Amino acid sequence: MKLYIAKSAGFCFGVKRAMDMALKAAKKEPKQLYTLGPLIHNPQAVEFLRGLGVKAKDRLENIPKGTVIFRSHGVSLGDLKKAKRKGLHIIDATCPIVKKAQFFATYLHRQGYAVLIVGEAYHPEVEAIKSYLDEGVVVDDARVVQKLGPWEKLGIIAQTTQSFNLFKEVVTASLERAREVRVFNTICHATMTRQKEALEIAKKVDGMIVVGGYNSGNTQRLVAICKEIQPQTHPIETAEEINPKWLEKCEKIGLTAGASTPSWIIKEVEEEIRRLKE
Amino acid sequence: MKLYIAKSAGFCFGVKRAMDMALKAAKKEPKQLYTLGPLIHNPQAVEFLRGLGVKAKDRLENIPKGTVIFRSHGVSLGDLKKAKRKGLHIIDATCPIVKKAQFFATYLHRQGYAVLIVGEAYHPEVEAIKSYLDEGVVVDDARVVQKLGPWEKLGIIAQTTQSFNLFKEVVTASLERAREVRVFNTICHATMTRQKEALEIAKKVDGMIVVGGYNSGNTQRLVAICKEIQPQTHPIETAEEINPKWLEKCEKIGLTAGASTPSWIIKEVEEEIRRLKE
Repeated sequence: MKLYIAKSAGFCFGVKRAMDMALKAAKKEPKQLYTLGPLIHNPQAVEFLRGLGVKAKDRLENIPKGTVIFRSHGVSLGDLKKAKRKGLHIIDATCPIVKKAQFFATYLHRQGYAVLIVGEAYHPEVEAIKSYLDEGVVVDDARVVQKLGPWEKLGIIAQTTQSFNLFKEVVTASLERAREVRVFNTICHATMTRQKEALEIAKKVDGMIVVGGYNSGNTQRLVAICKEIQPQTHPIETAEEINPKWLEKCEKIGLTAGASTPSWIIKEVEEEIRRLKE
Repeated sequence: MKLYIAKSAGFCFGVKRAMDMALKAAKKEPKQLYTLGPLIHNPQAVEFLRGLGVKAKDRLENIPKGTVIFRSHGVSLGDLKKAKRKGLHIIDATCPIVKKAQFFATYLHRQGYAVLIVGEAYHPEVEAIKSYLDEGVVVDDARVVQKLGPWEKLGIIAQTTQSFNLFKEVVTASLERAREVRVFNTICHATMTRQKEALEIAKKVDGMIVVGGYNSGNTQRLVAICKEIQPQTHPIETAEEINPKWLEKCEKIGLTAGASTPSWIIKEVEEEIRRLKE
C-alpha cells in the first residue's frame, strides 16, 4: 500500500495563530476566558481548549465579563461594538487574510460598487464580512448570478477558504450582468494550494480520506473537490471513524485535512490507515 | 425551404454613422477627401465610396492636404498628432463605443493597472487603443495568460467586436495570475446580440451563410461561432460567391452578416438564395 499525505494538510497560518493566542491567554489567565463561537471549526480542538479553561460561547450575552477571543473567522461589526460597550477585554485572533477580505469588501462598497461575496451565507466569516456593508449579496452558485443585477459597477470578493473554481464561475457569470466588474481574489494562498494538492492526490489514488470538522466549510469543500475525481472519498473527524471496508481494495490511499484540523488528529489517522493495511 | 435572416445582420450604429459622415462630406466637398485606411472592412462599400470621390489611403504620408476621415475603428495617437501637425481638416468618425474602450484602457493605465486587451493584435481598432498606453498586452487566446504576469493589479478590456466567450475565458484565466482584476466589458451590445442571434440560427438550420468582408474581424468571428455549431457554414463577400451545391440538401438556411456589410449586399444574397431554392 502506498499512502499519499498532502503536505498542505492541517492548520493554516490563521488557525495556528488563533490557537497560539488562545493557548497563551489560557496560560496567563484561564479564568473568565471565552471565545465567541468555537475558536476553530474542529470539535476535538475546541474540546482540548475547554480542558485548559477556554470556554466557547455563542453569544456575547453569555459572556458577562472577562476576556473574549475573536476567532480566526473574524467578528461582525455589531458584536465588535457590543463587546467594547460591555468593557470586555478583547483578544482579536481574526486571521489577517480574513481582515484583508473585510477591507476589500468595505473598500468596494465605499467606492460605489455593488458587492458580491462568493461564499456560504451562514458561515461566520461571511456573516462578519457582510456586516461591514450596508448591503451585499452572498452567492454559492454561479447560476444565481443571472437573476441578479444588472449592475453598472460590481465588486466581487470571496470567503478566504472558498473553492477557486466556484469563484471563477461567479466572475464569469457576472460579466454578463455588469459593465464593470472589479475582482479581488481574497481566497487565501494556503486554501488554493490545499485544494490543488488534494485534487492532484485524488487523481492518482483508489481511495481518499479527508480529515476535519463536519462544521468546517473548507474541509467539506475539499471533500467535494476530491469526490468529483475520486468517488471513494470519505470525510472523517477522527481516526476511529475509518471503516476498514473503505480501504480493503485500495492499493493507493490519499490523505488530506482541512485548515482547522490539528496535526495530532492527522497523525492518528495516518497511523490507523497504516495499521489497517499492514 | 425556410430562410432565417438575422435581424441583427449588417451595419451597426458605428459603421452607419461613419458611412453617413463620409457621404455627407462627399456631397459637400468631394475633392481631396480621404479616409485613413478603408473606412469600413467591406471592399464593396469602399468601392462605392471611391465612386463618390472618397479615396482610401493607408498612410498619412500619402495625404498631402485636404480632409481626412478617421474611420469607425479609431486612430492611433501618433496618427492623430501627425494629422494635426500637417494641418489636415479632420472628420472623426471613430465609433463612440470604440472611444469608450480607448477611454477605459487609458483610465486603467493611469490608475496603475497592467492592461490586457482581448483582441486581434493587428486590428486597427486594437492598434489604436494600444497606442494610448505606454504598454499593453493584446491576447487572442486565453491559454497565453498563464504565461503572463503575475500582476498585483490587472485591468482588462476588449476589442468592441470581440467574441464574448473569448473575453470570459481570458478573464477567468487571469484570476490565477492577479490579485486584483478590474474588467470593463467594452464589447458593444450590437456585437453581443449579433453573436447570440447567429448562434441561435446556426442551431436550427442545415446550412449557414455569413456575409461580410474577408478582412472584417467581426464577420470572421461570426463564421467561427456558427461553424462550431453548424459545420456547413460558408463565409461570402457577395451573392455571386454562393455555390449552389452548398444549398442543395438544405431545407432550412440561415443568413447573417457582419457589422460592416451593407444592406444592399445582404438583400442580393437573400434574393440569390431564394432564386436557387425556387
